[in-house]
Amino acid sequence: MSTTISVSSPADFHVHLRQGDLSELVTPHVRKGGFHLAYVMPNLTPPITTTDQALEYKSKLEKIDPQTEFLMTLYLSPDLTPDEIRKAKNAGIIGVKSYPRGVTTNSDGGIESYEAYYPVFGAMQDVDMVLNLHGEVPSDTSANVHVINAEQTFLPHLRKLHAHFPRLRIVLEHATTRAAVETVKSLGSTVACTITAHHLALTVDDWAGQSWNYCKPVAKFPDDRKALRDVILEGHPRFFLGSDSAPHPSIKKSTSSPDQGCAAGIYTSPILLPLIAHLLDSFGALDRLEAFVSKNGRAFYKKEINTNSSASTAVRLRRGKTPVTGRYSAKGQEVIPFWSGKDLAWEIDN
Amino acid sequence: MSTTISVSSPADFHVHLRQGDLSELVTPHVRKGGFHLAYVMPNLTPPITTTDQALEYKSKLEKIDPQTEFLMTLYLSPDLTPDEIRKAKNAGIIGVKSYPRGVTTNSDGGIESYEAYYPVFGAMQDVDMVLNLHGEVPSDTSANVHVINAEQTFLPHLRKLHAHFPRLRIVLEHATTRAAVETVKSLGSTVACTITAHHLALTVDDWAGQSWNYCKPVAKFPDDRKALRDVILEGHPRFFLGSDSAPHPSIKKSTSSPDQGCAAGIYTSPILLPLIAHLLDSFGALDRLEAFVSKNGRAFYKKEINTNSSASTAVRLRRGKTPVTGRYSAKGQEVIPFWSGKDLAWEIDN
Repeated sequence: MSTTISVSSPADFHVHLRQGDLSELVTPHVRKGGFHLAYVMPNLTPPITTTDQALEYKSKLEKIDPQTEFLMTLYLSPDLTPDEIRKAKNAGIIGVKSYPRGVTTNSDGGIESYEAYYPVFGAMQDVDMVLNLHGEVPSDTSANVHVINAEQTFLPHLRKLHAHFPRLRIVLEHATTRAAVETVKSLGSTVACTITAHHLALTVDDWAGQSWNYCKPVAKFPDDRKALRDVILEGHPRFFLGSDSAPHPSIKKSTSSPDQGCAAGIYTSPILLPLIAHLLDSFGALDRLEAFVSKNGRAFYKKEINTNSSASTAVRLRRGKTPVTGRYSAKGQEVIPFWSGKDLAWEIDN
Repeated sequence: MSTTISVSSPADFHVHLRQGDLSELVTPHVRKGGFHLAYVMPNLTPPITTTDQALEYKSKLEKIDPQTEFLMTLYLSPDLTPDEIRKAKNAGIIGVKSYPRGVTTNSDGGIESYEAYYPVFGAMQDVDMVLNLHGEVPSDTSANVHVINAEQTFLPHLRKLHAHFPRLRIVLEHATTRAAVETVKSLGSTVACTITAHHLALTVDDWAGQSWNYCKPVAKFPDDRKALRDVILEGHPRFFLGSDSAPHPSIKKSTSSPDQGCAAGIYTSPILLPLIAHLLDSFGALDRLEAFVSKNGRAFYKKEINTNSSASTAVRLRRGKTPVTGRYSAKGQEVIPFWSGKDLAWEIDN
């Protein structure tokens, strides 16, 4: 049984770094959690819909943590044009994130149907930008669509987009179901899939009545979780980490009133690499750690590290029972990480 | 469109009246909500497992509200013997409630398999007592059993019990799924089913991240809710109200910590009859109101009202937008009802 493990330049291909004081608190946690690269979601208030906004956001993040590499995205909306796509590409922006309307934090401006965006997707395919899909359809009582089958119901849209734009790189974000895993596996090399750390840990029973485990997409059934674990275990190259680490002020996670439920999102950034090592270890996939948190995602995004460079890009973990820090706070902001107070079996070996 | 409606002696065949100060606060709400009869659950701390305990509990409840009729139940546990069943029957106790271990409030002493209780069930069948089933199996990751399929997975146990004890009156409590409705419909006249008010209102989306709408069994999918509504709409005689009104201190409903989720249960007693009128009205079943909240349950439990008695047993509702009172408190106890702050379209016409 190995007691240390080394991972070259871990990359988190889906993370929320927020704005203002909260951003100052959480952005350094990417590196604290063992990661060198953060693929940054654009669902701010207002959302990041232009190249200029994305570059301004990037420079703020770099000011907070100059060491981390931030890859930027735009929020898919009617504001986005093929011209803006070309401008974004030239400015080094990597992807465009699509949110269905109303399904998660700050998604009120999300899309309702994809056909209207085909010119944008065509431009993205031409310049080789990545389309990141929040793969859920909005709940619809009359059609029996709800939070449990919202992802599965979305999958035909993914198939259709891939059929129309076979060269467009598409990432189905934060997959939670066996159906999603099987669909992505069945599609071509341009379609990949991120998996979060928390969806490797949780099922529906964990968020029933427990707001701290509530996120979108909601964690599904044990059999779905097994499918997520199995696809990592088998080492499938088109599946990789996107933590969807989503900090909310602790008061918004811990309380609800009859009028207002709690915020959706689970915060894993500060413990991310040890947490994933712990989880992969628990289902016998520790030897897939580097593929899952670095190699596969970097290959898909064409962000491979230079293997001839110095050894400083490696992050080392060692076995060792370590309690998760209870809370982080600054400037009136407080966030509490996933598994607060629990023990992890791995820690970063600084 | 009628503006008043009259219901003879409404009966709630599943209600939690708690202990101590909380009981003093909530027990009068049965009558406040328009109900004359309360079928009282035995999951206290410690649970009501003997005739003597049930009679003592009953006298406490009668002291709090001498006007309401309380029908008492025992908690199925290894303490219960055929002798105790005969004693209970002679003392006027009506039913025995079975809780699977660990699935809801105070169910740690619940049963794990039914065969051990066949002698008790045989005695119950002989003396014509009612078996009330919390129809869920405990979650089991290895068997892909979770809060969403826990009821459906239980249904074979109901079929088996009915086959072994065809004359035993059995009530499947607080049904939440189309599968449960169809199973009960397919069984004989000794098997009935209660439906709560809140399960006519909620689906899984309503409790995702909203602790005030969290209860066990959890509300399921829109199609399941439709099955519950449809069986009332069709006027099936073996389906009737059991509110499962379950008060918890408001602090336990509104907050959770990373270690401890919120309490499971929805409190409907103080608004129950207007709420049900509102809901049945919303899906065109207002003409089934009396059958659902009085006639069907009373017929199954052999508690028919004497139709020759005075008109004072009738409760009249009138159309009228009425906000739900926000909270009730006394002696340091505070409870907040379902739909607090919302408007109901019906009110009790005192």
